This record gives sequence, structure tokens and C-alpha cells, in this order.
Amino acid sequence: MTATKIETPVSTKIVLGQNQYGKAEVRLVKITRDTKRHEIEDLNVTSQLHGDFTRAHIDGDNALVVPTDTQKNTVYGLARDGVGAVENFLVRLGTHFTGEFDWITGGRWSAEQYFWDRINDHDHAFSRNKSEVRTAVLEIVNGEKNIVAGIQGLTVLKSTGSEFNGFPVDRYTTLQETSDRILATDVTARWRYNTKVVNEGELDFDAIYTSVRGHLLSEFANNHSYALQQTMFEMGRAVLEAHPEIDEIKMSLPNKHHFLVDLTPFGQDNPNEVFFAADRPYGLIEATITREGVPATHPIWENTPGFC
Amino acid sequence: MTATKIETPVSTKIVLGQNQYGKAEVRLVKITRDTKRHEIEDLNVTSQLHGDFTRAHIDGDNALVVPTDTQKNTVYGLARDGVGAVENFLVRLGTHFTGEFDWITGGRWSAEQYFWDRINDHDHAFSRNKSEVRTAVLEIVNGEKNIVAGIQGLTVLKSTGSEFNGFPVDRYTTLQETSDRILATDVTARWRYNTKVVNEGELDFDAIYTSVRGHLLSEFANNHSYALQQTMFEMGRAVLEAHPEIDEIKMSLPNKHHFLVDLTPFGQDNPNEVFFAADRPYGLIEATITREGVPATHPIWENTPGFC
Amino acid sequence: MTATKIETPVSTKIVLGQNQYGKAEVRLVKITRDTKRHEIEDLNVTSQLHGDFTRAHIDGDNALVVPTDTQKNTVYGLARDGVGAVENFLVRLGTHFTGEFDWITGGRWSAEQYFWDRINDHDHAFSRNKSEVRTAVLEIVNGEKNIVAGIQGLTVLKSTGSEFNGFPVDRYTTLQETSDRILATDVTARWRYNTKVVNEGELDFDAIYTSVRGHLLSEFANNHSYALQQTMFEMGRAVLEAHPEIDEIKMSLPNKHHFLVDLTPFGQDNPNEVFFAADRPYGLIEATITREGVPATHPIWENTPGFC
Amino acid sequence: MTATKIETPVSTKIVLGQNQYGKAEVRLVKITRDTKRHEIEDLNVTSQLHGDFTRAHIDGDNALVVPTDTQKNTVYGLARDGVGAVENFLVRLGTHFTGEFDWITGGRWSAEQYFWDRINDHDHAFSRNKSEVRTAVLEIVNGEKNIVAGIQGLTVLKSTGSEFNGFPVDRYTTLQETSDRILATDVTARWRYNTKVVNEGELDFDAIYTSVRGHLLSEFANNHSYALQQTMFEMGRAVLEAHPEIDEIKMSLPNKHHFLVDLTPFGQDNPNEVFFAADRPYGLIEATITREGVPATHPIWENTPGFC
Repeated sequence: MTATKIETPVSTKIVLGQNQYGKAEVRLVKITRDTKRHEIEDLNVTSQLHGDFTRAHIDGDNALVVPTDTQKNTVYGLARDGVGAVENFLVRLGTHFTGEFDWITGGRWSAEQYFWDRINDHDHAFSRNKSEVRTAVLEIVNGEKNIVAGIQGLTVLKSTGSEFNGFPVDRYTTLQETSDRILATDVTARWRYNTKVVNEGELDFDAIYTSVRGHLLSEFANNHSYALQQTMFEMGRAVLEAHPEIDEIKMSLPNKHHFLVDLTPFGQDNPNEVFFAADRPYGLIEATITREGVPATHPIWENTPGFC
Repeated sequence: MTATKIETPVSTKIVLGQNQYGKAEVRLVKITRDTKRHEIEDLNVTSQLHGDFTRAHIDGDNALVVPTDTQKNTVYGLARDGVGAVENFLVRLGTHFTGEFDWITGGRWSAEQYFWDRINDHDHAFSRNKSEVRTAVLEIVNGEKNIVAGIQGLTVLKSTGSEFNGFPVDRYTTLQETSDRILATDVTARWRYNTKVVNEGELDFDAIYTSVRGHLLSEFANNHSYALQQTMFEMGRAVLEAHPEIDEIKMSLPNKHHFLVDLTPFGQDNPNEVFFAADRPYGLIEATITREGVPATHPIWENTPGFC
Repeated sequence: MTATKIETPVSTKIVLGQNQYGKAEVRLVKITRDTKRHEIEDLNVTSQLHGDFTRAHIDGDNALVVPTDTQKNTVYGLARDGVGAVENFLVRLGTHFTGEFDWITGGRWSAEQYFWDRINDHDHAFSRNKSEVRTAVLEIVNGEKNIVAGIQGLTVLKSTGSEFNGFPVDRYTTLQETSDRILATDVTARWRYNTKVVNEGELDFDAIYTSVRGHLLSEFANNHSYALQQTMFEMGRAVLEAHPEIDEIKMSLPNKHHFLVDLTPFGQDNPNEVFFAADRPYGLIEATITREGVPATHPIWENTPGFC
Repeated sequence: MTATKIETPVSTKIVLGQNQYGKAEVRLVKITRDTKRHEIEDLNVTSQLHGDFTRAHIDGDNALVVPTDTQKNTVYGLARDGVGAVENFLVRLGTHFTGEFDWITGGRWSAEQYFWDRINDHDHAFSRNKSEVRTAVLEIVNGEKNIVAGIQGLTVLKSTGSEFNGFPVDRYTTLQETSDRILATDVTARWRYNTKVVNEGELDFDAIYTSVRGHLLSEFANNHSYALQQTMFEMGRAVLEAHPEIDEIKMSLPNKHHFLVDLTPFGQDNPNEVFFAADRPYGLIEATITREGVPATHPIWENTPGFC
């Protein structure tokens, strides 16, 4: 049907390549009520198993297919004994599956965590803090664990202290240089812990999350920006300098354009006061900030959607 | 074509009924930079004009059609002189149009306001607080202003202190009574100010917003709930008791179900600790809480979408 | 706390006003498999009951509160006997509740219907047609039924045959006149059937839906447009002329701006060929097209969200 | 601050790793009006450049940073000369940047394409067909082009002809075996063309898209399913068998659960007729179907979000 110029494909034999399956977005709310002062933990958990599932794909033989429904049930069953740091919960979940079923060679377990604040320091009433989402990914390959933690949806803006100058100009360039603009972005950051410390050590993931978040915010606020690239690099550098247990951090930052409105037709000036906040298109600035000597790629990133 | 049983329509003459037009979702970010400590105001403004636009509809004659583009420009032009309380900004916007064009007999102006927190008390760096959105609507009819203020997206949950019992049972009832459940909702509330005070008085809309928000939260937290209806009524009553300038308040509250997971197949108990947070369906509880003597309907509600 | 200028509220007695409650977004898929050639019906149903629920709100007494869970169950139970035209299904649902519980004086039942096409005319394999959604609302008040049908999400565009000229110009006007532009919108239309025919007659709602949809599309396509208002009116007029059983039709049409890109800096012309499709802001054009003599307001619209 | 067990990080020297930047979601509508019968092309284009941008990240020196605004302009400028098959448009875009700026060593260019149908075969009036979205990605590395094409949002359902049996059972298994269930999914598929044919040959991408889509649909419809894994594999196998120019295809298929409603409490049977369509959680089945001998990973997938 199609007029193509290929006569000999690589091979006419068609086989199953990389694959995984599981249950996505298991919404778990855990209330800890040991005392009158309740605690709430709110997660969205995804479990995906790795192993040799060739027969399910080729023959429809499900003898090795631990049902996705079972994976969901396991999330709830394990939560009965508490959640704790989301990374640790994923480790319990992942090691359960690799321990329970000898043909499960590994997998990928991930979660989003949502935050709640107490209403007026109330014992059991909460309001959701939607300003950011915490993320975590565990991947187990041949018994080795790797963990990527992250933050997403953290929207920040600085109303001055940002320039953009000195860029190359070609036929299609109409942008003007500016020494004072609004810089705004939604921070999505993911940091990978050193494999050795994940497998042999013990990390206080909650404390690290709080610290990383603090560094990202304060670097964004305090650095004079010559480009979002430069601000992003400083944010990552601060995280790595403070956290030897982190090998690399990736960020994906939209440059959320705030265009100065031209008020001159109305007889008005506009000294960086009135802006139109645009939706699309947006700049998209992405990079890995890493320690020297860390390999350029790591398998856990391949399965981590939404970022290079 | 269609087999209908009507032979005589009300009338064969077809005319233009209620109508309005304008520009929706004008995204305005206003930075006030009189001092080194900047202020940010972030709005999503909609302007809709009322008047006799029959000729535009019937004949395509646009002589009276103030372009929606002009309405957008006016939002930015007026913002140059400051925004302030969103209700007051809408009043400036609305009275501009009714004053500038004598055939504009009124209109509907509305806005969402987004909140920003300072990063570490920084002078010009902010992070968005997404936990709620403030709303406002102004309607002008024949020179009379009416204002509805509101809050939306405020998600709250109590992990105990909520029952649901004593309901009627029929053939289709399978729900069990419960004396202890999670109660969770997204608060959407809209309150209408007394018309006289809007047109003759002066209101501190920002302070009222903060106060109403506080009452909604504290009533949700502190009342033992026998039904979401009852909790909602208490929330509204507290607002009206504290604010004589408000005539009525409407709320639309989804009952966001958190189902207790049955862990008994796994040999576990579940004393109200592990829940599945469901998406759909959800309960939907809506009511007006009002002062005695306030008419059952008010025209401003007709044009206010998303709520009875 | 707030500095307001009102001393005497309308009344210090606070009462329950209009209210309704029910279950929203019950996702129902009904397969009819009487023969090997299956039929699929796909609905999102909302049920809301009206009656005197004062005691639930004031006292937390649920003796009259038919649980929202029961309402959901009833949707599924009634679907067992077939769905059919969505308006007729809502009538079965509504009359069930008003017949079963003597304190239920009425209510509001609504649905979205999603369409599926057969894959290659297959007996039991389908692909979803997402190009539009059909909507229906039934309201019962004191035994009288009213029905509003609708369509939403129908995105249309014409690449010529649209002008916008002759509009008034003021200080804030920068828009240029144009005799050739792209006109694009998402059609949301809702039409109300004559009350008498709904209560006494019999309507082929499926056939009418198809016919109304056809008139909306062909009028959009075939009329030379001088304003979206005028196009909208012609669309509505065609519907009313063809359907005596419809009293009025409301439309809410965003003017989805397609801005001609200025290519002159790149040494190129642009004779209405290359456009930027903007997200926000957008024009918003809304009107009722009605038969002469039909009252300006009807109670069913008050509870119908998303449109004036 | 954090109690970690690592003393010696991999290195204290922090460097820039993989990075890219550009403009995302450039909304382009191209009307071809050479004759009275217009053509419409509707794209959402993202351009990301690769090269050595170290100085921008480290020093804020933008001398090599082709502005994202320029990238957007280039999309519109190139579109003036026509769009055509989206893959070919991306090749024009990518080779423009690598040809124009000698420090741009490569990049990633991608697009979504939206479909429009003619209204009643009209010359210039269209309605959007939202039932699927076509996608394309081009990556250029050291002058070598690779192309991944795709389809997303194609929702399909079969009302019988699907089983799920013979799975392993453990403590957390409550799922029952079934020999007749609804199988529904949203098809996201991405296929990678053979590198040699992309760089040396000529492909009719539009025809291939239509053909691949057809194979995916017909295999979904016609195969009796013992597991979504098996159905997915058959879909991929059919594509590779028909298209020697494709080396591998990846699919990510949610198992959109339709749960049979238990009507027995209401005294009704339910012979696979009445279903509850659930939102979350959902199964998630992902695999690569590939030719024997194709390497397990390819760099273009690393930058392709949303899929393993």
C-alpha cells in the first residue's frame, strides 16, 4: 500500500522487546489514628512488574501474570502497616513482589504524594496544600535498587532580577534584548540517589526532600538571572553541593512567558507593571546537573516519563 | 423528518432573547514596584456587555459592538492605575463601559484571583499558592450594581467526626450506616452582598474574603457532621452571622468518597485507617443559606455558571 | 473584623433556601447483546433530588435523605431494562424517584452521552467518536416535566467567508477591520422543548438531535459571517424553523482566535495562510434565540450550569 | 541537616550533563488556498536544540543560545511554504537549524497533528475530528536523522471476545477469572522507522500512518483476547509484518476497567449488560514489539516522554 524504498527489513522475525505491566494510579489515603491527633498520608501509587512475560504476549498464557488487581490490593495491604517516607514504602512494595514471585526479576514502582495542612492546628481536620506534588520512583533490576525522588508543579516567579541578552540574531529573530523581565516557571525536578547509598545505607528521605525543595526555591529567588538555563544550573548545583548522597538532578522548566502589554496606544506608559501571562507556546529548558564521572545515562531514566 | 406530535408552535416568529458577549479569560499579572518590595496581583478577567445588540445578530451590523479585543485592552489599560480588591477592579471596569458607551446598559464582569506567597520573605520572588482560588462577579443592570464574591477549589477533609445514619431504605439501597467516616469536599462558595450596601456603602472586600474563608474552614473542622448537608448549612450560617453585609451564600460541595478498603481477604483488619479515594461518581450537595425575607432568586445567579 | 458600612442586615434569622443533592457523574456503559451484533450506550448520569430537606440541613436528621448511593444504584438498576434515547431514560429515572418517595417533589436529572463508531462494521468492536458530546437535562417541578437537550464540544472552523467590520472605536481600540478571517468556535447549544409537548406528546429525541446537529453545522458552513453573533443567530433560527417542538435555543460560543502571523520581518507575505491558534483570551458570544412570546426566563435554566 | 550514611560523593565537581532547550507547543494552523477548495493543517510543534550550551548554563552567556522565540518564528516562516506530511515538516525544521547555526549539533523536533473533516464536503468549512491525534518526533544526532511516528488518544472497546484466566493466586488475590469481559483501552503507539531508510530513502508517511492505524484497529477488533498483553502484541506484529520500513513499535495501553455491576441486591440478573466505567486505578500494559536483532534501546526513546 505504501510506496517505500526499503526491500529488506532488519528481520522478518518479530519478537517481544522491553515490556512491563501493572496497576497505575492507585489512590491511597492512610489515616494514622494511634492518638487523637490523626496523621494523613495521601498517595497515588503505580506498580509495574518486570520479568519474562513472553508467553502472555505470544500465547495468551497468564500463568506468570500477577494480576494488576493483585498489585492494587498489595498496595492497600502493605499500607495497613503504615506508609512513612514514600521512597521507603515503594521499597517495601517492590521487595514484596520480587520476594514473593521468583519470576519477577524487578519492576518499577512510583508514587505522587499530596500534602495536607492542618486547619487551625486541628487534630483531625485538614486542607489540601496543592502548591506542589512530591514524586518518587524505585526501580529494581537484578536485586539492585535505584531511587529517583522529585518535586513537580512548584510554580515560581520573580518580578525582576532577570535579563536575556547577547543572543545570536538571524533572519527569523524578532525578539528584543531585555535587562529586566519577569521570570516564571513550574519546577519539575528529579534527583537520583547514589546507588551504593540506596542499597547499603539509610537515608532520611523526608528531610532530604525538604532540604532540596528549600535549595531550589532559594536559588531561584536569590540568583540574578541571565538566562533560565543559568538559573536552573545554579538550582541544581546548590542541591548537589548540599547533598553528597545525590548523584545527579534533572530539571524540566517551562519558561512561562509574561509579555509586557503595549499601553502606548492608550496614552499610557508601562514600566514593567502590566503583563499578559501567556499559555502557549512556552520556552522549555531541560538539563541534567551531575557530578563529574557519573555516567551520561542511567537505566532508571528510560522508564521515567516526562523528561529527557 | 422527526415524528413529533406538535402542530402549532408557540409562534413562528423567531427573535433574539437574552444575550451577552465579551472577552473571556484575560490573563492579567500586575506588578506594583513603587518600592523594592514588589507586590503581585494575578487575575483571570472576563468582561461581558449587555445592551441592544439586535442588529448585530439579525443584520450583521456591528455599529454598537464594542469589540471583545477592546474589552481586553481596557482590562490592561485600567490595570495600569492599579488593581486592588478584585471586586473594586470589576466595578471600575464595569462603570467604564457603561459610562463610555451610552448603549451599554449593563454587563457582567468576573474574575478569578490566584494567590502568591513570598519565597522566604523575598522582595520580588514568589511561589504560587494553589490551594484555593478567589472569585468575584459584578453585574450591572440599569445602573444598579450587584456583587457576588466566592472561593473555589478549597479541598478539605476530616478523618473522623462524621457520621451518616438514619436514611430511608428502598429496593435499591445497599449503603450501610456509619458512625465514623472520612468527610472530604472541595469547597465552592459564592456569597452575594446586600445590594444597598454595594451601591451606597463601602466594603473592605479583602478583609471579608479572609474572614469568610476562616469561618468556612473552622466550621468544617469543628462541627460534628451527621450529613454533609448539615455541615454545609453550619458553614453558611457562620458566614451570615458574622457578616451582616452578606444576604445569602450558595455552596456546591462534592462529597468526595473515601471508601474503606476491605482487607479481610488478606487477613487484616482495617479500623478506619486505609482508604481508597474515588474519583467518580461523587455526591453533590448544593444549597443556598439565606436571610429570612431575601427573595428566592436573584438575577445575578442566572448568569453565574456552575451552580444552582 | 471587617470595616463595613452596614448596621442592619435584612434579617438576623438565617434559613435554608433553594437546595438539591444527589449523585454526580455516574458512569454507565450498557451493552445490548440480544443478538451477536452488540449495541453500546455510554452515559455520564447525574441525579439530584428536590424536596423539603430542612431537617437534614438544620438537625442532621436524614430520615428523608434518599442516599446518593441509592440514586447511583437506581441508575444501574433501571439501565438493566435498557437505556434508549437519553431524554427518555432521564424521564424513567426522574419519575421513579418522584413516584417512589412521596416527599420527593421533583429534581433534576442530567446526562452526557458519548458516541462510539463500529470498527470496520464489526459486531462488537468500537472506537470512540470524541468529536462531540450529547447532553440532556430533565427537571420535574410539581409533576411537570421540562427537558433541555444539547450538544457540546463540537469544534468548527471556516477558513474564509467571515468578516468583522464597522465596529465602534474608542481610546482602547486597536483592532483592525478585516474582510477575511478564520472563524472558529466550539459549539455548545442547548434547546428547550415545549412544555406541553414534553408532558403530553411523544418526541423522537434521537432523530431531533441528529437534525438539530445538522442544521447547526450547515448554517455555520453556509452563511457568510459578518459577526459570530450573526452566525449564531442564523444557526439558532434554522433550528427553530425546522422544529416547532422547540421553544428556544441557547448557545455559548467562544470565538477561538486564529491570528495571522506577521511574516514580513522574514521577508515573506502571508495571504491568510499561516495562523497562530491562541488559547486565551477568547471572545465569548452567548444568546438565546427564541420564539416570540416565550417568557424571557424559565426555571430549568437556573439549574443548568455553564450558560446564561 | 539530613542523616545520611554517605561521606564521599562520587565527585564534588559539578558539571552540566545532557541538556536541551527550545519552544514547546507552537500552535500552527496552515490554510492552503490555492483553489476555492481550501485545505487545513493543524499542528502543535515543539523544537528543542542540542549543542554545547555550557557557557549559557555556567556563565549566563547567551552567545550560542538561538532564542526560543526565534525557533517559534521559524516554525511559522517555514510553514509559509507548506507543511505536508508532519514528519517531512519536522525534517525541514530540523535541518534548517543544524544548517543555519554550525554549533547546533542536533535536536529534537516533535509535533501533534489534529484532524479536521469537511462539513458536508464544504470547500472551506470544517469540523474537528477529535477521535485521535497523530504524533511525530525527529531527532538529529551528528547529522543522522531518526523518526518516530505515533498515534494517541484512540479509544477502543470490545464488548465480548475477551477473557482473563489462569493467573497466579497469592494472599492478595481477590480477582475472579472471567471468560467474557469488556476490553477497553486508549491506544498510544509509537513506531520507529529504520534509520537507513529515513536517511537514504523516501517514505510516504501519510499513507503509512493510515495503514498502521488500520492494522491497530482491525487486530484489536478481530483477535480473541486472552490478555491485553496478547492483544497488544498482535497489534504490533501486524504493523511490523505489513511495514518492513518500521523497526519497532511501542505501545502503552491502559486497561480501562468496566466493572459488571452487581444487580442481585435489586433482584436483577446482569448477563454482561450493565457496567460501571471506572476512572482510576487502571491497568497499564506496555511493551516494545520489535524485529529480531534490533538493539534493545535506541537514543530517540530517551527523549520521548510518556513511555518506557
